[in-house]
Amino acid sequence: MDISDVGGVYRGFASDNNAGVHQQILDELQLVNTGHALGYGNDKYTEKAYATFREIFGSETETFFVFTGTAANVLGISAASRSWNSIVTASTAHIETDECGAPEKFTGCKVLTVDTPDGKITPGLVERHLHGFGFEHHAQPKILSITQTTEMGTVYSPDEIKVLADLAHKNEMLLHMDGARIANAAVSLNLPFRAFSTDCGVDILSFGGTKNGMMFGEAICFLKPGLTDGFKYIRKQGMQLASKMRFISAQFNAYFKEDLWRTSAAHANKMAQMLYLKLKAIRGLRITQEVQANAIFIVMPVEVAEKLKQSYFFYTWNEQLSEYRLMTSWDTQEEDIESFVKLLGKEISHI
Amino acid sequence: MDISDVGGVYRGFASDNNAGVHQQILDELQLVNTGHALGYGNDKYTEKAYATFREIFGSETETFFVFTGTAANVLGISAASRSWNSIVTASTAHIETDECGAPEKFTGCKVLTVDTPDGKITPGLVERHLHGFGFEHHAQPKILSITQTTEMGTVYSPDEIKVLADLAHKNEMLLHMDGARIANAAVSLNLPFRAFSTDCGVDILSFGGTKNGMMFGEAICFLKPGLTDGFKYIRKQGMQLASKMRFISAQFNAYFKEDLWRTSAAHANKMAQMLYLKLKAIRGLRITQEVQANAIFIVMPVEVAEKLKQSYFFYTWNEQLSEYRLMTSWDTQEEDIESFVKLLGKEISHI
Amino acid sequence: MDISDVGGVYRGFASDNNAGVHQQILDELQLVNTGHALGYGNDKYTEKAYATFREIFGSETETFFVFTGTAANVLGISAASRSWNSIVTASTAHIETDECGAPEKFTGCKVLTVDTPDGKITPGLVERHLHGFGFEHHAQPKILSITQTTEMGTVYSPDEIKVLADLAHKNEMLLHMDGARIANAAVSLNLPFRAFSTDCGVDILSFGGTKNGMMFGEAICFLKPGLTDGFKYIRKQGMQLASKMRFISAQFNAYFKEDLWRTSAAHANKMAQMLYLKLKAIRGLRITQEVQANAIFIVMPVEVAEKLKQSYFFYTWNEQLSEYRLMTSWDTQEEDIESFVKLLGKEISHI
Amino acid sequence: MDISDVGGVYRGFASDNNAGVHQQILDELQLVNTGHALGYGNDKYTEKAYATFREIFGSETETFFVFTGTAANVLGISAASRSWNSIVTASTAHIETDECGAPEKFTGCKVLTVDTPDGKITPGLVERHLHGFGFEHHAQPKILSITQTTEMGTVYSPDEIKVLADLAHKNEMLLHMDGARIANAAVSLNLPFRAFSTDCGVDILSFGGTKNGMMFGEAICFLKPGLTDGFKYIRKQGMQLASKMRFISAQFNAYFKEDLWRTSAAHANKMAQMLYLKLKAIRGLRITQEVQANAIFIVMPVEVAEKLKQSYFFYTWNEQLSEYRLMTSWDTQEEDIESFVKLLGKEISHI
Repeated sequence: MDISDVGGVYRGFASDNNAGVHQQILDELQLVNTGHALGYGNDKYTEKAYATFREIFGSETETFFVFTGTAANVLGISAASRSWNSIVTASTAHIETDECGAPEKFTGCKVLTVDTPDGKITPGLVERHLHGFGFEHHAQPKILSITQTTEMGTVYSPDEIKVLADLAHKNEMLLHMDGARIANAAVSLNLPFRAFSTDCGVDILSFGGTKNGMMFGEAICFLKPGLTDGFKYIRKQGMQLASKMRFISAQFNAYFKEDLWRTSAAHANKMAQMLYLKLKAIRGLRITQEVQANAIFIVMPVEVAEKLKQSYFFYTWNEQLSEYRLMTSWDTQEEDIESFVKLLGKEISHI
Repeated sequence: MDISDVGGVYRGFASDNNAGVHQQILDELQLVNTGHALGYGNDKYTEKAYATFREIFGSETETFFVFTGTAANVLGISAASRSWNSIVTASTAHIETDECGAPEKFTGCKVLTVDTPDGKITPGLVERHLHGFGFEHHAQPKILSITQTTEMGTVYSPDEIKVLADLAHKNEMLLHMDGARIANAAVSLNLPFRAFSTDCGVDILSFGGTKNGMMFGEAICFLKPGLTDGFKYIRKQGMQLASKMRFISAQFNAYFKEDLWRTSAAHANKMAQMLYLKLKAIRGLRITQEVQANAIFIVMPVEVAEKLKQSYFFYTWNEQLSEYRLMTSWDTQEEDIESFVKLLGKEISHI
Repeated sequence: MDISDVGGVYRGFASDNNAGVHQQILDELQLVNTGHALGYGNDKYTEKAYATFREIFGSETETFFVFTGTAANVLGISAASRSWNSIVTASTAHIETDECGAPEKFTGCKVLTVDTPDGKITPGLVERHLHGFGFEHHAQPKILSITQTTEMGTVYSPDEIKVLADLAHKNEMLLHMDGARIANAAVSLNLPFRAFSTDCGVDILSFGGTKNGMMFGEAICFLKPGLTDGFKYIRKQGMQLASKMRFISAQFNAYFKEDLWRTSAAHANKMAQMLYLKLKAIRGLRITQEVQANAIFIVMPVEVAEKLKQSYFFYTWNEQLSEYRLMTSWDTQEEDIESFVKLLGKEISHI
Repeated sequence: MDISDVGGVYRGFASDNNAGVHQQILDELQLVNTGHALGYGNDKYTEKAYATFREIFGSETETFFVFTGTAANVLGISAASRSWNSIVTASTAHIETDECGAPEKFTGCKVLTVDTPDGKITPGLVERHLHGFGFEHHAQPKILSITQTTEMGTVYSPDEIKVLADLAHKNEMLLHMDGARIANAAVSLNLPFRAFSTDCGVDILSFGGTKNGMMFGEAICFLKPGLTDGFKYIRKQGMQLASKMRFISAQFNAYFKEDLWRTSAAHANKMAQMLYLKLKAIRGLRITQEVQANAIFIVMPVEVAEKLKQSYFFYTWNEQLSEYRLMTSWDTQEEDIESFVKLLGKEISHI
């Protein structure tokens, strides 16, 4: 099925990156499109965006823009690691399952994982990988990496993050946060960004916007000072230095203006709750994860899923369990939910 | 100097990537911003763009979009090489001087260079590197890489390209073309793209648009069949897979509509001729390369250059020779040239 | 403690690579040390050794010598993988725990692991990693890797290997065997090498000798044809091409002469059984793995271990469990076992 | 031709690594082959060898053993560079021509070369590559690398080395010396090793022994303090950590005992002079490089070379010039020279 050919305007639940670009962001691209600007970030729009990041995350924050979330994760981690290090994360983490080995290829590091019930690592879970320090045969643990919100749609509390940061620092490691959906977490926690990042001891942050209404462009924020020596070369060698960078910066400037990020993420989260409530009411479905942000994981009969997939594209999460992932986004409309739930209800009743 | 703070609209001669985005391209971004589209290129806009590339370069052309010119070069070459190969190119080539070692880091290959008078390699020049085939101590030559237009603003003729392709193929090597400014070359040669690429035996092409009015996004075109096995993984692992790819594809669709690429490049080239003629008339300057596209290389007294740089940003090409590079772009205006030349004339007359 | 300074001749149970070199191997080094031989393996001793490998593993076997077991594993796997692949193995595998990330660094691949009770993977255990084929976000599973004998001192039966080879091949993957202690397995199974490698479908084999009386040098045997294209460059670029290769080849020639490998491994295994029986008789110890080759894993009180370590170096396997590894080797003497067990018995009786 | 099958004892002029192992070194291997020794260098033989290196090169010298000269160069440089650096060297350097791209693959760095008349770089020659510092598009120059004796058989004077060290340090770069044949240089200069390394400002040294009578094993000597943080992991991840390291250390211990290295290298150099004088006397040959150590480069008619190659293996250096390389070694005998020259004289007289 080519979803793009569905008549009328199609909005589904495959991923928040299937949504388009918020109009205020598009408008800003138009606004900055005047005359020449120095390339590679030496322009006033980028300067402004970086200043905003300092306001949000602390005055020592150093920010670098790249193109994709994968690049943000990989290059950010690369700044703080050498090839003989290891990165410890959840087995469901994006860096483990969805980056086609980019972390290994670019950093040379080993990625070590632990299974978790909800996408969240804990000191108890990761302990098994924190050994062999100083033993030359063993890749040296250097990074703990968490995703906020997690790939399972759950959200770390500030306390949960702090305890991981403490564990990392005690072992001379660093805490990395993949914030591809950090806005959804901020809304879910009802806290400013820094309350669950800088203030909890997060050292390196991938700050994503694409999944929340931007067109492209992600930020790597070094929250802990002293990590950016040589990073400009890492970004360039990593093929992630934008020549016309003002068009990334402008998007972030619009994203932060009047808290557009919050409005958009709050909407997505709200839509997820609405979808969740409607699904919960349908007999024969099972929700497998707490719905704390904009993702819902459901188990449904495979025949129902197959039927639904004739009209909607969405991802099978676990084939053996017949588990599927649904995501809402900044542009999800109530009517989209109603249509989907109606079809789902119809199909499941046929079984 | 922060050029961005110059009063009014500033347009200089630093690089064609200092220019903004053509309005028709921005408009297209607006146009495709409706509803959801599958991520990662599984959308109708991308399908259409790929079809256009097949029309232009031949029905067997396989196209992949990435974000930057560096990525287009590195990943394209990566598809056809293993880490024990070498890449032979001009010492002025972008892959040698301006990619911070990205080719070596990502492909593992050795980059071998030859000095050229005009940025163009020839069979005679590269011969010194075409040996050691089959000898395990020696990195195996696999890629000849040319840039069209060259980094020196010159343009390869179809015959010059063909003879390099033949040389490459005779040695079981491939010919790669960095087409960051391929539109300027097509205008300069007054030939369709394929007349100096596919038809001459070019195997892999980086097709650039950013320097000619696009916002971001470059295409890797595999003109020779059989090179794309596994390439989708190379792109993803190379951190160059765009989630909202429709916004790259839309740009290419606008770029090809009514030959916008040609109008824009023709304008840039014409402006370069105008600038060239005016500079030629100034006593005390020396033009060091033939002006065949949109770059001009001049030698001027260093004091003059310093003065000019108080109002304009542009690159010193060769400090020892006091040689500088000036580039025109799709949005250069006659008045920009007049102001610049006037200031230059004034400063040089003071010496 | 510097074990080397222990008076008299010291022989402990730290590792079979703490042992010296078998005299017949040293004698062979002397024997081939006459006149000049072409470097890099173009000599008659290497030719002979490669011929022996073909006799042992099958006429299509292609063999390459390298220096270390880590190199044998990494380069062998590298021949059959691209950077976007993944390697599936046991969490106790040498390539996972004891190569400091060399597989990731050199191949770019992801290493995926499963926990096992005994160091042996099974189709059921690895199934969780065999998915995402063709999905560009996911590193593509390409290699199943087993160790024979395992790092836990256990031995795969031919049937266990065959079922893994079938699983690999069904998924267009390959089966790699780390045979650092393959001789101990052959003795344990009482089978010729090929009966549990080539004949079971193993594709790539690291054939080790250093742990069984050689000085240095390991062999990579490609049992399946078609994998060695370009491998000579991989070895050289991998910094593993020996200039005076006759001195590796000579060792293998001595190793195979009159089955020296078998005598040595049989002795080591026999000594392990003797040690095992004596340890079993001591109250307060627990043997945690079946003793099928030359390794014994015991749980003993940490105070006892500390005391023992004043006279013997050996590895703590699992600090939390107070589990330790003891290994016998080709040169272990009954008296070494008696002294060790006597001391252990004395220390444990003091508790 | 299989040289190994030549009747009697064959000694040619292909390379000093075609020679065997000095008997005193073999004897030492026998001597240390007693009992167990801790693996990976934690033994008394290694301790002693490292102490000798400190005596020779200065008390702050840190030494690490690896297997090959390529590994010594690549890992040594790796310790002091990041992937975005460049290495500047002669176009004839081993790291450029004979390591199959291992430096690029392992370090990620760019290797930049200059042509030289005699294999020796100078400040004037390398100047063209020492620019772009701080410019993120440009690989950052970090290492100057020289070979002593050079691949052309010439020898740097201490003054020539010092001026390069000063140039490197002025630019915050380091000076690396590939000392694969450093013993031949010491003899040629009649100076202790440190007089043309540590004392001249060399920072990192590959100290070779294989080409001068050892069996295998090279040393990386960090002459400048502060470079070895993490190096033990680099060596292990680089697949160069020997398990039975005593057998490398023993060789170095024998090598330094009673200056065996000097006797052997002096002999090789003397044999080169003898060969040189005899060749000079033959009409129709041309010696193209000064003979300062143990290599001779001659131009001779290609037919003569072909004839000679039926009895002797040696390398064609430059096919177009009909230039060939001859090397003497620690075991070259006068009679070997006489036979070779006699044959050469005979063949050339037939033309």
